[in-house]
Amino acid sequence: MALTGEMLIGATRLRGTERPVRAINPSTGEAMEPAYGGGTAAEVERACALAWAAFDTYRATTLEQRASFLETVAQELMELGDELVERAVAESGLPRGRIEGERARTVGQLRLFAQVVRDGLWLDARIDPALPDRKPLPRPDLRQRQIPLGPVAVFGASNFPLAFSVAGGDTASALAAGCPVVVKAHSAHPGTSELAGRAVQAAVRKCELPEGVFSMLFGAGSVVGQGLVADPRIKAVGFTGSRAGGVALMKTAAARPEPIPVYAEMSSINPVFLLPAAMKARAEAIGKAFVGSLTMGAGQFCTNPGLVLAVEGPELDRFVAAAAEALGAAPAATMLTPGILKAYQEGVERLSNAPKVQKVAEGLLHNGPTQGQAALFMTDAASFAADPGLEEEVFGAASLIIRCQDTGTMRDVAEKLEGQLTATLQMEKEDVEEARALLPVLERRVGRILVNGYPTGVEVSHAMVHGGPYPSTADGRSTSVGTLAIRRFLRPVCYQDFPAELLPEELRDNSPLHLLRLEDGKPVQH
Amino acid sequence: MALTGEMLIGATRLRGTERPVRAINPSTGEAMEPAYGGGTAAEVERACALAWAAFDTYRATTLEQRASFLETVAQELMELGDELVERAVAESGLPRGRIEGERARTVGQLRLFAQVVRDGLWLDARIDPALPDRKPLPRPDLRQRQIPLGPVAVFGASNFPLAFSVAGGDTASALAAGCPVVVKAHSAHPGTSELAGRAVQAAVRKCELPEGVFSMLFGAGSVVGQGLVADPRIKAVGFTGSRAGGVALMKTAAARPEPIPVYAEMSSINPVFLLPAAMKARAEAIGKAFVGSLTMGAGQFCTNPGLVLAVEGPELDRFVAAAAEALGAAPAATMLTPGILKAYQEGVERLSNAPKVQKVAEGLLHNGPTQGQAALFMTDAASFAADPGLEEEVFGAASLIIRCQDTGTMRDVAEKLEGQLTATLQMEKEDVEEARALLPVLERRVGRILVNGYPTGVEVSHAMVHGGPYPSTADGRSTSVGTLAIRRFLRPVCYQDFPAELLPEELRDNSPLHLLRLEDGKPVQH
Repeated sequence: MALTGEMLIGATRLRGTERPVRAINPSTGEAMEPAYGGGTAAEVERACALAWAAFDTYRATTLEQRASFLETVAQELMELGDELVERAVAESGLPRGRIEGERARTVGQLRLFAQVVRDGLWLDARIDPALPDRKPLPRPDLRQRQIPLGPVAVFGASNFPLAFSVAGGDTASALAAGCPVVVKAHSAHPGTSELAGRAVQAAVRKCELPEGVFSMLFGAGSVVGQGLVADPRIKAVGFTGSRAGGVALMKTAAARPEPIPVYAEMSSINPVFLLPAAMKARAEAIGKAFVGSLTMGAGQFCTNPGLVLAVEGPELDRFVAAAAEALGAAPAATMLTPGILKAYQEGVERLSNAPKVQKVAEGLLHNGPTQGQAALFMTDAASFAADPGLEEEVFGAASLIIRCQDTGTMRDVAEKLEGQLTATLQMEKEDVEEARALLPVLERRVGRILVNGYPTGVEVSHAMVHGGPYPSTADGRSTSVGTLAIRRFLRPVCYQDFPAELLPEELRDNSPLHLLRLEDGKPVQH
Repeated sequence: MALTGEMLIGATRLRGTERPVRAINPSTGEAMEPAYGGGTAAEVERACALAWAAFDTYRATTLEQRASFLETVAQELMELGDELVERAVAESGLPRGRIEGERARTVGQLRLFAQVVRDGLWLDARIDPALPDRKPLPRPDLRQRQIPLGPVAVFGASNFPLAFSVAGGDTASALAAGCPVVVKAHSAHPGTSELAGRAVQAAVRKCELPEGVFSMLFGAGSVVGQGLVADPRIKAVGFTGSRAGGVALMKTAAARPEPIPVYAEMSSINPVFLLPAAMKARAEAIGKAFVGSLTMGAGQFCTNPGLVLAVEGPELDRFVAAAAEALGAAPAATMLTPGILKAYQEGVERLSNAPKVQKVAEGLLHNGPTQGQAALFMTDAASFAADPGLEEEVFGAASLIIRCQDTGTMRDVAEKLEGQLTATLQMEKEDVEEARALLPVLERRVGRILVNGYPTGVEVSHAMVHGGPYPSTADGRSTSVGTLAIRRFLRPVCYQDFPAELLPEELRDNSPLHLLRLEDGKPVQH
């Protein structure tokens, strides 16, 4: 498929008239064809108008129609074949294996949401039958279901050009909920975005859905991004990116005449707690595995382990030595964009210059453009507490060890951390009481707690939480990965004393859907 | 129990030092004893510190302990006996029957949440078992549950001195979720608040819970109200009241270093759609029943029907004549406070003076202090569209009929309405197609749709939604009445590869709780 450099607005393609951008191949430093012109307020307006016009029709599709649409999107993505993989590799600098894995994840995610749509549990159907003879007052017949919020603005993320981008998790869960989607594509991978966007567009056409179910715009954050979030027809926002970017969208959304929810996944340093018995038993192995997680994907994961807490002493020395050895052999890795590399280098510089912070290890020097050198730093708990800047995420393969006097100090540090996506415990049986004391602190601060693993690698499943208290996300009541992500785009509606013919199918007495429903508060498989 | 005029901070009682307020008995206009001194920033600080200190212990209580605590609160409320009823009648001007009904509802609500806590469905327990042999990568063991957000600030509402106040729906659902509560009592019913607050305090003591599980403060909105919402230990807010009040809290919550959710139930005019066949069949009966709903409780309900839409013609004339007759016999009713009466009179004055609005009926003149005279107005659709001020809620027994040319105009008006708690259809079988055309519009705008009923009267049950898009509430994804209200105070946490001994009981393989859980996405009754 020849790339055209055009935006997708409903069923049409359109060249943006604002300052064009080209992707930079970060492995070579070269600009890639074609150029992608940016959208204006007029295109934002047009995409939102189409999305709004499509909303009632799209949300009225049957579960089967909607599920089959999601599967068609998956199919269309796969049919792009190698072209999609090669373009994504070229635009992101990520290795082919990773992009293939990410494609499998993206397609699997769409199919999982198709299954979720068919199951219908997300409808949370509830029926409280009428009690006409109840005293002192009769009870009316009350039925409840969840309905979609409305059109959703989705922002493509730089670090997952497939799985968190045009046809990624936010789009999949919003479409599953019944919400049309308007994507602002990320300028780091416009060609990948065009390919994925055209796959979704083709699926909309094949499934004979209204064209406004999906649009995709390129352009400046200040015009297209802010414009989408401010548009009255947009009813929710999905975003993965920087804290500054997410906070700017939150402000715009809160200042609207009708404020809307923003689901921004923003920043996290994902503390790893090395408990004493685990360190005694396997400090070297932990050090080596930790470096594997730290350097994976050039450290460009929301769940990258950017903070390590351990008790000072010979075990920590062993951990540091093993980590330094592993890191010393870690090749510099191509980062997503020159801008991300620059921010990473500034973050490393900041840590290097911090008065009470020592660099204890580093990766191999770069041997190509846009490559980042991994780095490991160490400080003590008091110095960490004294400098809030040390808690800022450095996006890339950099991490900071906090040397603690004892496990009580580890807990004190944890108690003061900002909200995080994850926390990890390295522990042995003998550490159980220490872990138990830490858990309430961690539960209050993070969305996912791992034992003896590493936070990178986020499973797309029913029990996953990729979310957490602010500022790891804008809304800690949600997850952006896993099937619960659909709930972000829903709200409840109650139908009182409705005649059967006006009730939605899922709430009728003899529903053909055979859903699990709450009847008078009790789960009943119909 | 002798009223002391004191605030409740954990297990202690304390006289506020700020400007004292006395309740005004709106039926007599007299100030009541005792005086209630207002709290300062120091008391806010103390209550929040205690709530925070109690949080981990309280949320770790077993389901049975927490359920039994809620039942103890209900029991303690009932044991206040007639003293509570009499004080609430005196402070609110509401009739005894209504207050007794409200007490039954409040106690029933606490007991219903006790049952919800025991059922454990709110935990939304999910288990995705490990798949160690999966290719290309094994899947870890993932388990998810919902945990409470943290201490919640609850604002007592003037119009439900029991059911939406100190021990009302917000408090019951927050306590059920595992959140300590700090109440800002409403200054219109401080004595009722003290009695209810002491009942909760006694239940905390009897159940041997940490004292910080419940505190109650009096005082100014600018000090105590804003102070609570700004306190970093408060993690969510429950509010029922004016739009200005709710919006002020939303602003404060959004401006915090860590923004928090605000569940403010603010304003709604609850449109009633009179469809043609229903009007033909029973315009008079509808007019009479409508007036019953309009004047109930002096019109002081969030769900009061403040807007009526009908097609112009002889049926509408019949409706107006019947409503005018019923309203003409409706006695003026005592309103909650002199301030609420004043605002009501100003609202009626505004409608009376609006150029294209006619007063078509009014209730009987007042014969006591603080009494409001019901009023019914009429305008046409174009005039309504031209004056946004006509959509503002007039809290009390005033309503506005919109004369429409046809049902298409009714739909056009509906399409432009702000978010509402409810919408009502009066319809016959012949109206089904008209109703079907209206439904998508209404679903997008309201939380509850009723057929052939009236919106006043909100059942506390599993399928109820008392919520709706902004500005009817601050967060249309939620309900403040019914068992789903618990979800407002929860967030998901995922446990990855946890040893059984560290897992919460509800997520263990052999959980003694026998919950319904999602296993690999499928509901399994354990």
